[in-house]
Amino acid sequence: MAVRVDLMISLDGFATTTDQTPDNPFGQDWSRLTDAYAATRTFRERVLHDTSGKGTTGIDDDYAKDYFDNIGAEVMGAGKFGLHNFPDDPNWKGWWGDEPPFHCPVFVLTHTPRPSIEMAGGTTFHFLAASPDDALQRATKAADGKDVRIGGGPTMVRDYLKAGLVDRLHVAIVPIVLGRGIRLWDDLRGLEAGYTVRSETAESGTIHLTFQR
Amino acid sequence: MAVRVDLMISLDGFATTTDQTPDNPFGQDWSRLTDAYAATRTFRERVLHDTSGKGTTGIDDDYAKDYFDNIGAEVMGAGKFGLHNFPDDPNWKGWWGDEPPFHCPVFVLTHTPRPSIEMAGGTTFHFLAASPDDALQRATKAADGKDVRIGGGPTMVRDYLKAGLVDRLHVAIVPIVLGRGIRLWDDLRGLEAGYTVRSETAESGTIHLTFQR
Repeated sequence: MAVRVDLMISLDGFATTTDQTPDNPFGQDWSRLTDAYAATRTFRERVLHDTSGKGTTGIDDDYAKDYFDNIGAEVMGAGKFGLHNFPDDPNWKGWWGDEPPFHCPVFVLTHTPRPSIEMAGGTTFHFLAASPDDALQRATKAADGKDVRIGGGPTMVRDYLKAGLVDRLHVAIVPIVLGRGIRLWDDLRGLEAGYTVRSETAESGTIHLTFQR
Repeated sequence: MAVRVDLMISLDGFATTTDQTPDNPFGQDWSRLTDAYAATRTFRERVLHDTSGKGTTGIDDDYAKDYFDNIGAEVMGAGKFGLHNFPDDPNWKGWWGDEPPFHCPVFVLTHTPRPSIEMAGGTTFHFLAASPDDALQRATKAADGKDVRIGGGPTMVRDYLKAGLVDRLHVAIVPIVLGRGIRLWDDLRGLEAGYTVRSETAESGTIHLTFQR
């Protein structure tokens, strides 16, 4: 069982964008960060339910496949689930449609828990007012021997990294300079200690960097 | 003739370190940033005058060779030359010994110019109180058809990048998180526009990223 993180960041280290508008809830910057990943065959199959076989099949796709492999539970922040966008909608069920791509229990950290939501395909969203450590323990138990993903956003990921709780950090560095957003790397001096770090560049230009315990 | 920049930065984007002490004028962090470059055969030959043939000969060394190729003049900031460390020493001649590795005119930007210094091996240091643009024109003339290097530090490099004056930016990203220093990428949103960006990873783990006009 390993605790894993996968994030996409810009060259200047921004993992979450801040140009969202009501009409464009992810923002232009988010699209630029995620284009190469969204173009993979695996993303199209797993997230968009597109079984046509279209999509890229190179190094980006290898990481996309790996992303979905052997995950037994996820912990995510309220922002990733969308609670900051729809705080007053008790029926909000996340961004991912009726059959979200998680297929496992997902623990959403929030100060205002709500009832669990069972979705098609094995995903159940649970809402917890818990410390990162407690949430990880709960997720680890639910994962039943499989890996646990710390899903983000970056502020939450930093908390887990600082606490030394992450076994594998995979960062897809997209070769663009965003100049705004929320940074991944802040306040993580010396993070590399105790990890083996390696990197390779995909056909898209994305640099895949992995910190492995 | 092209205007070129080469910098080493950490994953979190720090190009200049800030842990210098009188006893260790570059600081521990600087050593960690530059270790892979300093281990190359080319650095040992060109900077340390070590002709033993020792040193690494892989991808880092290819970039090190390229660094020294076809440069006709350099523009550098007062900090890189050491004027901030030795402001009151009229005999300070930089960090690089009697035969510096530049072998061309070097224009040091400073608000308090001093007389030019001619060194062995073709390096002459000139001290200019000039705008980045004016300094570049002067260096371009001195380079006589060869390339001009913008030598840094990062604040100066940012000025040239923001002004659209750089034809090739090579960044060696060292896979460490420093957490402190002076950032390269700040305030450069959209820098990639107009450049072809590519990257490759050296045996040392350093990621070589090139923005080429």
